[in-house]
Amino acid sequence: MSFNTPAEFWLTGITLADGHLADVLVRAGRIAEIGTAFGAAPRFLRSGWLALPALVEGHVHLDKTFLGTPWQPHLPGSSVADRIRLEKLARAKTNVPVQVRGGNLVETELKFGTGYMRSHTDIDGESGLANFEAELEIRDKYRDEIDIQIVAFPQSGILASPGTEAFLDAALANGADAIGGLDPAGIDRDPVGHLDVIFRLATKYDKDVDIHLHEGGPLGVFELDLICDRTEKFGLGGRVTVSHAYALGQIGPEDLKRFGGRLASAGVSILTSAPQVSMPPVKALRSLGVNIFAGSDNIRDAWAPIGNGDILDRAQIAARQQDLVSDEDLAMALDLITGASAKALRLPEYGIAIGGPADLVLIEAENVAEAVASVPRRRETYKRGRKVAELGAPVA
Amino acid sequence: MSFNTPAEFWLTGITLADGHLADVLVRAGRIAEIGTAFGAAPRFLRSGWLALPALVEGHVHLDKTFLGTPWQPHLPGSSVADRIRLEKLARAKTNVPVQVRGGNLVETELKFGTGYMRSHTDIDGESGLANFEAELEIRDKYRDEIDIQIVAFPQSGILASPGTEAFLDAALANGADAIGGLDPAGIDRDPVGHLDVIFRLATKYDKDVDIHLHEGGPLGVFELDLICDRTEKFGLGGRVTVSHAYALGQIGPEDLKRFGGRLASAGVSILTSAPQVSMPPVKALRSLGVNIFAGSDNIRDAWAPIGNGDILDRAQIAARQQDLVSDEDLAMALDLITGASAKALRLPEYGIAIGGPADLVLIEAENVAEAVASVPRRRETYKRGRKVAELGAPVA
Repeated sequence: MSFNTPAEFWLTGITLADGHLADVLVRAGRIAEIGTAFGAAPRFLRSGWLALPALVEGHVHLDKTFLGTPWQPHLPGSSVADRIRLEKLARAKTNVPVQVRGGNLVETELKFGTGYMRSHTDIDGESGLANFEAELEIRDKYRDEIDIQIVAFPQSGILASPGTEAFLDAALANGADAIGGLDPAGIDRDPVGHLDVIFRLATKYDKDVDIHLHEGGPLGVFELDLICDRTEKFGLGGRVTVSHAYALGQIGPEDLKRFGGRLASAGVSILTSAPQVSMPPVKALRSLGVNIFAGSDNIRDAWAPIGNGDILDRAQIAARQQDLVSDEDLAMALDLITGASAKALRLPEYGIAIGGPADLVLIEAENVAEAVASVPRRRETYKRGRKVAELGAPVA
Repeated sequence: MSFNTPAEFWLTGITLADGHLADVLVRAGRIAEIGTAFGAAPRFLRSGWLALPALVEGHVHLDKTFLGTPWQPHLPGSSVADRIRLEKLARAKTNVPVQVRGGNLVETELKFGTGYMRSHTDIDGESGLANFEAELEIRDKYRDEIDIQIVAFPQSGILASPGTEAFLDAALANGADAIGGLDPAGIDRDPVGHLDVIFRLATKYDKDVDIHLHEGGPLGVFELDLICDRTEKFGLGGRVTVSHAYALGQIGPEDLKRFGGRLASAGVSILTSAPQVSMPPVKALRSLGVNIFAGSDNIRDAWAPIGNGDILDRAQIAARQQDLVSDEDLAMALDLITGASAKALRLPEYGIAIGGPADLVLIEAENVAEAVASVPRRRETYKRGRKVAELGAPVA
């Protein structure tokens, strides 16, 4: 879809995140002024719309989604290993390539206002780099609409799936932005061996780290500790994320305080998809200095049938789960998919500021609290000053 | 909004809840045929749309919502009594009448496909019948779009708020469909005294009963038992609902089995808003024969800022909370806002059947599972054969 955005224009009457009304001048892909409209540039009235920096999808799987393909009933698995097996069966049943399925998800997220995305792409000894190469194509195809980070993700383990390490190495050499990992004990059955490969490759290619950790209780906490050790040892503070970290939703307040402090000082971020059980406590972790952010994770795939690609919905789900209902707390929920996620993904120049990139989402909402509380159906998405998507009826 | 629906027309290519494709003939407000289109009546192609009987909003508060009025930050209360007090402060701050606020919510729910609704209207010694009379006006204004049941709801208690009993009596004499109640121990501090008034008035006017019960643990179970006793004693089986019933989400499986059986044999339905904690277990209760259904409860009001009036969203929230992800389980989640809620509200002729009322929602979804999993943004709502609302871009 083409929107023929002019190179210079005002968005007038918009509400900023702090509640102030302003006119915003966009010029050559950047925000040139924030104040009161002047001059001859075209003016688009957006009174009653909230402007935010484009939303950040912190964790998604472009290669897994079945979005836009015929419905596949969900087959529940009894363990992570079992679900990995079931996923392979389900994906073998579709003949729609990753480029199309993942592209459907990108286009859907764009309509909802996502401007940045981190996708974990399956790499294993059997499929090699096939998913990764498909995601490179997607990243390239949509490069003017969205910034995509690709994590080389060993979904079937590293030691447990022969050949994977070499494929991960090749992905990092050929454009992956980060190295992933998965349940070092349960899948590879060797936490140290699994993490050693990850941190060695991250250091070799100067890449970020983002590890799936479903393992809970004392085992999960032990592995978080191992990850903190290595983050410090290799000087990767601020560049490491642990996704899910259910253990943090299971331990008592004393342990949480201790391990939260450890994560904060090591510079390890936590990603949550706001699951029903074992969700890390957002408010407590933030107060300990931990950077916690959110992502959709599975959207209509073999792991989860529920989801529609609206990352703003995820902020509301997090708010529901942890009773974040005051205006301040609803703003905290929004931060999970804006500021905090931008920090974890180390996005340069994130935010609405003069001189910054005009990467925006406009939401038909009175303020930040209402945006999270209502998840409004009307949005407009801008990338580098160009309108790239909209949701709901077109705006004049 | 007027849609000028013809008196006779075909909806062609629609998907029914059982997965079959069919053309549906609507004539004089009723479903005249289900099969293959014939004859000269106009045909509207709805290929790719799922048709369901209009959704049932099982529990809402039309007088409480602030929808369509300026945002009010949420003030968290420490107890039910404290929140009742805070609500009175918040409602005193708005000068928008119930007729307008409640009307906003009705129009919003209509767009999402709600065709039937049960609203609990506050009646107390101070405000008397003011809210009730406003809701009567709303019910009358929208009588061609939606069927609204009004519950006379003693939000401030009965014994605790002098004059309330007489107002409840007057409401039942003047058009209320059911008598409500609230936490008989905590608010009135006299469970038997509270319930005696309710069941006496229900019997006097031959009305249904729907009691808010937040009280948990052994106290809540005790009160459920008292309610079952009276349901049986007064022959009100099938006509009594307990809303929330957190106790059922707190007791162990043995107790659940015992009390579930009691509720089923007494004919007491359970309403849930799918809260984050203490949600009654849907699957277990259904297997015990209990009729459990769902409602939005608070939508943008002093009790909860979150919510947008989409009752289909509530089915998804329930599915998320209790991991209902197979196709069969997603259909069960949908039943919470269709069949089970229709049963609790004793709606005559509910469902899509030849000769039945053409009260429909069309949802752009492949099947029932996808409707719950994706909560699609495009809908069309029909009441007695007339299109009354739509969501998303207009359909030809």
